[in-house]
Amino acid sequence: MPDYQAPLRDLRFVMDEMLDYPTHYAGLPGGEEATPDVVGAILEEGARFAREELLPLNQSGDLEGCLLEGGEVKTPKGFKEAYSRYVEGGWPSLAADPEQGGQGLPPSLAMVLSEMICATNLAWGMYPGLSHGAADALRHHGTEAQQATYLSKLVEGVWTGTMCLTEPHCGTDLGLIKTRAVPNEDDSYTLSGTKIFISAGDHDLAENIVHLVLAKLPDAPAGSKGISLFVVPKFLPDADGNPGARNGVSCGSLEHKMGIHGNATCVMNFDGARGFLVGKPHKGLACMFTMMNAARIGVGIQGLGLTEASFQNALAYARDRLQMRALSGAKAEDKPADPIIVHPDVRRMLLTQKAFAEGGRMLVLYAAQMVDVVERSDDAEQTERAETLLGLLTPIVKAFLTEVGFEATNEGVQVFGGHGFIQEWGMEQLVRDARITRLYEGTTGIQALDLLGRKVLMSQGETLKVFTKEIHKFCQAEEGNPDMAEFVRPLAKLNAEWGELTMGVGMKAMNDREEVGAASVDYLMYSGYVTLAYLFARAAKQAKSALAAGTDDAAFYRAKVNTARFYYERLLPRTRAHVQMIQAGGESLMALSPDDFGRGFEI
Amino acid sequence: MPDYQAPLRDLRFVMDEMLDYPTHYAGLPGGEEATPDVVGAILEEGARFAREELLPLNQSGDLEGCLLEGGEVKTPKGFKEAYSRYVEGGWPSLAADPEQGGQGLPPSLAMVLSEMICATNLAWGMYPGLSHGAADALRHHGTEAQQATYLSKLVEGVWTGTMCLTEPHCGTDLGLIKTRAVPNEDDSYTLSGTKIFISAGDHDLAENIVHLVLAKLPDAPAGSKGISLFVVPKFLPDADGNPGARNGVSCGSLEHKMGIHGNATCVMNFDGARGFLVGKPHKGLACMFTMMNAARIGVGIQGLGLTEASFQNALAYARDRLQMRALSGAKAEDKPADPIIVHPDVRRMLLTQKAFAEGGRMLVLYAAQMVDVVERSDDAEQTERAETLLGLLTPIVKAFLTEVGFEATNEGVQVFGGHGFIQEWGMEQLVRDARITRLYEGTTGIQALDLLGRKVLMSQGETLKVFTKEIHKFCQAEEGNPDMAEFVRPLAKLNAEWGELTMGVGMKAMNDREEVGAASVDYLMYSGYVTLAYLFARAAKQAKSALAAGTDDAAFYRAKVNTARFYYERLLPRTRAHVQMIQAGGESLMALSPDDFGRGFEI
Repeated sequence: MPDYQAPLRDLRFVMDEMLDYPTHYAGLPGGEEATPDVVGAILEEGARFAREELLPLNQSGDLEGCLLEGGEVKTPKGFKEAYSRYVEGGWPSLAADPEQGGQGLPPSLAMVLSEMICATNLAWGMYPGLSHGAADALRHHGTEAQQATYLSKLVEGVWTGTMCLTEPHCGTDLGLIKTRAVPNEDDSYTLSGTKIFISAGDHDLAENIVHLVLAKLPDAPAGSKGISLFVVPKFLPDADGNPGARNGVSCGSLEHKMGIHGNATCVMNFDGARGFLVGKPHKGLACMFTMMNAARIGVGIQGLGLTEASFQNALAYARDRLQMRALSGAKAEDKPADPIIVHPDVRRMLLTQKAFAEGGRMLVLYAAQMVDVVERSDDAEQTERAETLLGLLTPIVKAFLTEVGFEATNEGVQVFGGHGFIQEWGMEQLVRDARITRLYEGTTGIQALDLLGRKVLMSQGETLKVFTKEIHKFCQAEEGNPDMAEFVRPLAKLNAEWGELTMGVGMKAMNDREEVGAASVDYLMYSGYVTLAYLFARAAKQAKSALAAGTDDAAFYRAKVNTARFYYERLLPRTRAHVQMIQAGGESLMALSPDDFGRGFEI
Repeated sequence: MPDYQAPLRDLRFVMDEMLDYPTHYAGLPGGEEATPDVVGAILEEGARFAREELLPLNQSGDLEGCLLEGGEVKTPKGFKEAYSRYVEGGWPSLAADPEQGGQGLPPSLAMVLSEMICATNLAWGMYPGLSHGAADALRHHGTEAQQATYLSKLVEGVWTGTMCLTEPHCGTDLGLIKTRAVPNEDDSYTLSGTKIFISAGDHDLAENIVHLVLAKLPDAPAGSKGISLFVVPKFLPDADGNPGARNGVSCGSLEHKMGIHGNATCVMNFDGARGFLVGKPHKGLACMFTMMNAARIGVGIQGLGLTEASFQNALAYARDRLQMRALSGAKAEDKPADPIIVHPDVRRMLLTQKAFAEGGRMLVLYAAQMVDVVERSDDAEQTERAETLLGLLTPIVKAFLTEVGFEATNEGVQVFGGHGFIQEWGMEQLVRDARITRLYEGTTGIQALDLLGRKVLMSQGETLKVFTKEIHKFCQAEEGNPDMAEFVRPLAKLNAEWGELTMGVGMKAMNDREEVGAASVDYLMYSGYVTLAYLFARAAKQAKSALAAGTDDAAFYRAKVNTARFYYERLLPRTRAHVQMIQAGGESLMALSPDDFGRGFEI
């Protein structure tokens, strides 16, 4: 069975040494509680919970899956008990507002814990994970009464939440939804329609489920400007706020999926369900985006968690499995063959995983500081900058970390050879679970359009400049440092190139809007590689400083410098391909008619 | 349910127009039977068989899987009947020697049919697929008596074959095998040991199963020089050659796998099984390589088949699914949204699949001509050249086509968005089935070492030169043709670079053998991209000639030119990354000690 140890040493490096979280927390309203000691204790306890409670249920949950019995969903054995302990431990409320019963710790801390949960049991983690989004939407857009009714229950974790967006004929294009909400004589609405792909849509972990549902009012304008948001509880709260009458919403069936079998992906039928408007009529999509941005970062963290899980187990296997001798001569002469970690190509795969895990962790923790600021800071200027940068980074976190997460979990299978294909080892499950992360909460293609179209080009490149300026400053500061030249020189070049590439695409797009879509995914991947290059350069600087200053953990810092070097030498060259592909433009993409695509096989 | 139409038009283009199969067949001993009419009829009938008999069993076979009951394996519903019809149709014997009951048609023709089988039902296709290898080994290395007993049964398909190599502690490193063969007083041996990952190790499709087994004799030298090959039938043939007494070989358990659920992957226990030596004592590995080279090309064809299957279904979905408007304005104004095929990034994914399918098909058919020559030609010089080139291309066919096949099947899922993750659509099965192809018959890493180490560097680059000279000639011939410049200029550059890169790695490897492993996978991928670039240039030339000459199928040829252009503009740039990664060398791979890899999480 796969094992997992939370990467506490690496977390400490990124948080305490590289990104100076202690100062960041100290300056954050409410963050003063998050002293290094408190943070350390929480991370250790979270690590224990993930390893001892969630990891043992990951393979069994995958094998067992969820069952729909008598209209109710049954989760795999042990899921309910683990969830109870999660609630008892106070985990759901960690970063929530004290006014709503939360502990008021910084959101970034919950994000770190989320990495551990995703690494040990993604399917389980999606049950509490979806609640955050629902709570966010109610916190920002709900009435006081709605907040009083639903919010503390969600924060406490005794109820969970969902996001009901997708319908059979539309996912990305929510303007097409058909679910209808008809006003009743009181303040409620009657909802009718079918939603699909509803994660945690029904289950037996919590006493009630709070659905946040997109639907159209009778007088709704056509398209995405006519969508409203409703809260629809599974059980209508009674006068005391406890689950009362069963509402007209139920799980019609469970999807059979490639992975995340332990999570119930439901077709949800709304048959005259009673719901309540959240926010203003026809403004539901904007409310939903509150949830979606957090959810997108959450999915990026899933990619990171799966990468780390796969890396750790591939490493253990590579040290243990004896096969062939090193090309340069036997390394373990006392054994019948060398452990496969001696082979350069096995090391290439492991280092690819390691670099994406450590790079992804830096990216998440870097973005998490901005989440903290946006959510908590009372400094307007600081908040505006954080919002801008977070807007830019969100599609990168989501799409880049899930794309490389899929690659990394596949490298994990590859290190195991044929055994990687066998369920028992657990490596193929990580691939199957990772596969959904490239799709849900907006596919990679959608994230790429968000990045290049909405964030970068619509701001005339200003949003990007906020980030490239920061990188430029870093490069300038290190210009005279020969010890950092191996990182800073290529980084400075890439940073300049990023701006030029953007300008190039922007110019082309003025003549032909399709050029945005033609460049977008390559642009996103390029942006991800450059972003990680910046963070690895900072990590290398930090590690080299520690080594120069003298340390009793030299092996850690040397490994960090080497991982950065590997990243620069063996992963960053991928930018060369992306640059050419971006510059190639859309002509070869747009030339064929839909019919002509099939000329080779259609008669 | 997924659909599939054999790409007969594209096959005709590659075979008849581009690679001039009619002349190739006419010049091949025994090939004169394979007239264009005969070939056409066989391909059409094969297409029908694949679509009507195999495709309907693909999803059900995946869901049902195989069962081990009372020591016997039961295959999914319908598999046995389809296999009977396959045998009745004479398919197994198509390309076999008439002396052994075969129809004597060229091996390449069986390879074309194999693409169709892999595209429609990979798990089923592995039952007859493994028999070819076993028959080959017996044909080349078996005694006359062994051939008389087993070969015609295998050729006819009433018995099937397996390759029993892997053991729990060794796959790549067969020198470590523990299965023992002790000579009896007659000409037989008693085999004891356990083999794992035995595809089609037991099943209910055929009346007998012929295992080709690697084992060690009591006096065997240590390591890979002490391995012998044995034939071990499930039922010992009686005096009339019919299945007689049950032999001491049985399926101990079935592996639970990520994919190819319809194929029985068996743990095979040899408990005092009676076997017969094939070839000379201790020379088993060489005999096995006869099987393995054909099997490796067969796995490359699996990658191709899955790519085509995924492409066709993604294309159908992209034409049908309405979502969002084109960035440049609505294309289907009468519909609520545009079909997603209008979006450039969806086209990028479809074209990636299309280019890898058509490029892979050209590569397989190009290599298949060499297989024909090696197997059938009586021209020594021609045979030697074909053997050399085939040796070079085999690891490329195997590893490159399975790596890009995995990518392509994943693009298929991505085109479907969230629906791609749902079993019902069949797209995720193609990914799960494709995942094994990167692993079995030697992982990508092993193929890469075979290519760079054994084939290229051990021949001092001479093997590579046979191919690069051919490419050079093509480029020279087209040098003055402005219409081909868009392909020939970059191709000529790449071709020269290929030689320089090889020299560079060779020089480094003289100082440090690990540099071979450090460069190998990037070198293989680079080689694959250049090889397809050569073939796409030839295809473009052929298509442009047809257009210039006038044709009533202009849409096909225009699509072909555009696909070549897409390949050059949007896939070939990946070589830029591989070049830099090859040149980076192994230092950053080899720097960390096995302990240092885990410094971030190990306490």
